Formats: sequence, C-alpha cells, structure tokens
Amino acid sequence: MDTLTGIKKQMLPFAELLGIEFVSAAPDKIVAEMTVRQDLCTRPAVLHGGAVMAFADTLGATGTIVNLPEGAGTTTIESKTNFVAPAPVGTRIVGETTPIHRGRLTMIWQTRVSTPEGRLIALVTQTQLVLSKL
Amino acid sequence: MDTLTGIKKQMLPFAELLGIEFVSAAPDKIVAEMTVRQDLCTRPAVLHGGAVMAFADTLGATGTIVNLPEGAGTTTIESKTNFVAPAPVGTRIVGETTPIHRGRLTMIWQTRVSTPEGRLIALVTQTQLVLSKL
Amino acid sequence: MDTLTGIKKQMLPFAELLGIEFVSAAPDKIVAEMTVRQDLCTRPAVLHGGAVMAFADTLGATGTIVNLPEGAGTTTIESKTNFVAPAPVGTRIVGETTPIHRGRLTMIWQTRVSTPEGRLIALVTQTQLVLSKL
Amino acid sequence: MDTLTGIKKQMLPFAELLGIEFVSAAPDKIVAEMTVRQDLCTRPAVLHGGAVMAFADTLGATGTIVNLPEGAGTTTIESKTNFVAPAPVGTRIVGETTPIHRGRLTMIWQTRVSTPEGRLIALVTQTQLVLSKL
Repeated sequence: MDTLTGIKKQMLPFAELLGIEFVSAAPDKIVAEMTVRQDLCTRPAVLHGGAVMAFADTLGATGTIVNLPEGAGTTTIESKTNFVAPAPVGTRIVGETTPIHRGRLTMIWQTRVSTPEGRLIALVTQTQLVLSKL
Repeated sequence: MDTLTGIKKQMLPFAELLGIEFVSAAPDKIVAEMTVRQDLCTRPAVLHGGAVMAFADTLGATGTIVNLPEGAGTTTIESKTNFVAPAPVGTRIVGETTPIHRGRLTMIWQTRVSTPEGRLIALVTQTQLVLSKL
Repeated sequence: MDTLTGIKKQMLPFAELLGIEFVSAAPDKIVAEMTVRQDLCTRPAVLHGGAVMAFADTLGATGTIVNLPEGAGTTTIESKTNFVAPAPVGTRIVGETTPIHRGRLTMIWQTRVSTPEGRLIALVTQTQLVLSKL
Repeated sequence: MDTLTGIKKQMLPFAELLGIEFVSAAPDKIVAEMTVRQDLCTRPAVLHGGAVMAFADTLGATGTIVNLPEGAGTTTIESKTNFVAPAPVGTRIVGETTPIHRGRLTMIWQTRVSTPEGRLIALVTQTQLVLSKL
C-alpha cells in the first residue's frame, strides 16, 4: 500500500468533518485540498480562521507521521499562523506542507494554504514532538 | 439586549458546527465551553489541535468585536498556540479570553483553554486587525 | 548560595552585553531589569525589537534552568513575541517570567516586559526543550 | 544612491552593536551576515537565541522599509522564531529575508538564518505594521 492510500485509510474524525482530501504524499511534501463549505465559514462567508488552522495542522501532523521511525508517535506542541487573505465560500483551497526540520526529538513543518490560482491565504509553521516507543 | 445574548444570536456557522457555547461576555473577558465530541477528535480520541485553535480563535475574535468602535470590523491576522495537554473525548473544555492590548489599530487577546478542573490544555495568543469604517 | 546569587554568578556573555540585571528568582517567577541604552535602540531611539526578545529569552531560559532536574540542560526551541508599545531610550524596563507549563520534555514560559509604571511593552511566550543527561 | 548603500548609511545602533553587515538588498530579498562573537553567545559558546532573533528582526524590518510607500514608516508587531541548530562562536551566519505578503496595512517577512554551508539555524516570521503618513 502506498503512502497516500495509507493516509486516506487512516483519516482522522475531525479531518473527515472538515472534508479534507489528500492529493499526494511524499516524505518531503504532502498536498491536500478542502472546499470552503458554508458551515466552515465565519460572517461574512469566508473560511473561518480556525478551519484554516485545522486544515494546516492536519497536513503538518501527516507530514511528520510519514517521516516517523517505526513505532514512534507525534503530537503538535505549537503552531503559528499568519493569515494573508480570505477564502470565500465555494473556494477549493490547496494546502502544501514541507519540512523545515526533521530531527530525532522534534520536526518542524510549514504549510502554505492557497487558492487554486496560487494566491496565498495563510502560512502555518508548527512543531511536532517525536514520541519514541519505550 | 445584553452582550451575551447578542453574541448568541450571531453565532458563526463554524462555531455552530463545533458546538461552541458562550457562557459569559464582558469587555475584558469572554468565556465559552465546548464538548469534545467524537467527530472533533484525532486518533487516539482526544480533541484535534485544529479544533482547539478554532475554539480559541472564535473567543479572541468575539472579545475584539465586543470592544470595537461603532461600525468597525475585525479580522485575525496571526495566531500562536502552545499545546500543553490532551483533552479526551467527552471532556467539557472551557475557554477564557482576556485582552493583552486593545489599541486603535490592533488588539491582542490571549485565550486559556482548560478542563473544568482547571488543567491547562492550550494557550493561544492572537492579533486582530481593527478595520475602521470608511 | 541562593538562586539569585547563583544566576548572577553565571551571567551569559550576551546578557552582560545587554546589561541585564536579575532582581529576584524563585521557581515560579524570575524578575530582571535592563536600561534602554542608546546602543540598544533602533531609529527613532526606542529599544530595538531584537533587544526586547533577547531580554525575554534570557528570562525564560533562566526560569527553565531554575526548574531543571539535576544534570539536565535546556535550549529554546521556539519563541513568539507580540510587541505592544515602544520603550524610549533611558527607560528602565522590567521583565517578569512565569511558567505556563513545566513538563518532563518541555517547559513553556511567558514573559511580560513592561515599564516601571506597568505599561506593557511586549509579551513573549517560549518553549524550552529539556535535555536530560544521558 | 542604490538601496544597499542607503541601508548601510542608515545602520541602526543595535545593528551596529551586533556587527550586522548587509550584503545585498532588492525589494524581494535582503541578505546580511554576522559573525558569532564571544560576547553574543550563551553558555556553551553558541549564538544566544536573542541575538539570532535580533539579527532576523533587523532583516525583516529592512525588507519592509525598502518596500514602503514614500513617507510611510513601520514597526514590528509580532515575531515568531523556530530554532533548529546552534551556531558556534566564530561562525559567520547568513540571513536571507523574503516577503510572504506585502500589503497596504501589513507586511509579513520570513528570514532564514543559516551557516555559510546552508545548514538552517533558525526560521523567523514577522509581521510589520505599515504606518502611513498623515
């Protein structure tokens, strides 16, 4: 089973609720998409900042999981988002996460969330703690 | 109509989806609660980091709105979260947001997300841009 | 030798260059002061944001060191600053750091930098990795 | 007078104290270098995290200044750093800042601090408020 298929079979409940769809998965880049549904919006009808962060957090955690040593786990310990532009209802947003650092104790991933035309919506940088098996 | 009633009548679609319930609202403190439903979880069944951030973002934005001058709007421009402990499925989490800064151009709000027993789950600090009417 | 005396005897070179002076030290609160010298300023003559962050980083790291188990070390893995007000040349700034989280793997400290009158200059939150002895 | 010459003639006092040297300056990329002097270090003798942040803050602010409309000013409102690797005393570090967003109200710059061999030391993302003339 390839990496992308494995990710799709292990979808997290909250990622399902948001409608996140993984598009490609390699050790140094994960891509996913999500449609800005009405129920993911704030008022006016643009994607809620929290949904942007949840989308990115899912990507960064997935990037880490793909790079973990056998038997290890991970948890997000901190996340920082800069919001650049709104994503109106109906937009199909794209998230690309790439590693800033893949260490033994921590990994750092950065996710660009943008429109299909490449307009940046938000930039998210997060640190994942690597939890080794005992 | 008091502030809390006003907030409840203006619930944002994504806040409804998450099941956020506002408990009290004053200019210098907003309190809300949310139950860790199964569909808000990651695996294992603890609250997804994205749902934590969305909960806090809603609180910080609401704190700003309560303090805006007549006719002004706001948008989150950046948000930083430190995750401290997991919130297992079924937990009723509490969020309290208080102002760090309430300026003419920006406001900064900090939100403590904790269990009913006061155990800290996450600390979120966010900057809101104040958008004056033309 | 008490904690404060121990800290003063171990002043880091860069803390010396900045003129940081520790005022009090307890396991849950460290206080230090620094004078806004001309050579720590940007233009106009207010304290450079980098000097604010360096002052706070020194405090947060010191707070961690005071709480480390015997033989362990620490390193800052991430730091987030919100700048609220400028500190003009000649101001004697005060920094107070308190723990958000003191765990086995990480500690999180938050530092308020303010004027002697209590006006907030910046709020800094940082994560320290706890490096256990082998 | 070209941009680089202009920047060098306007060196900020704290940038002078740190020994920051600008290498190149274009509207979408500023490069500077700094030698890890003994008095910029923590213990052991690696560059103090605060000096890393001060170096990057200077770069990000300079990137903003180069892009400001005539008569406008800027101030850093928030800054986030992820520390990846230490920079031992004697290292000549390199900082490159590039824009994430150049808007009318805010700009966001990201700075990579690395060794001459390209090993990442820290990644810094900061938001600058654009202060228009009256």
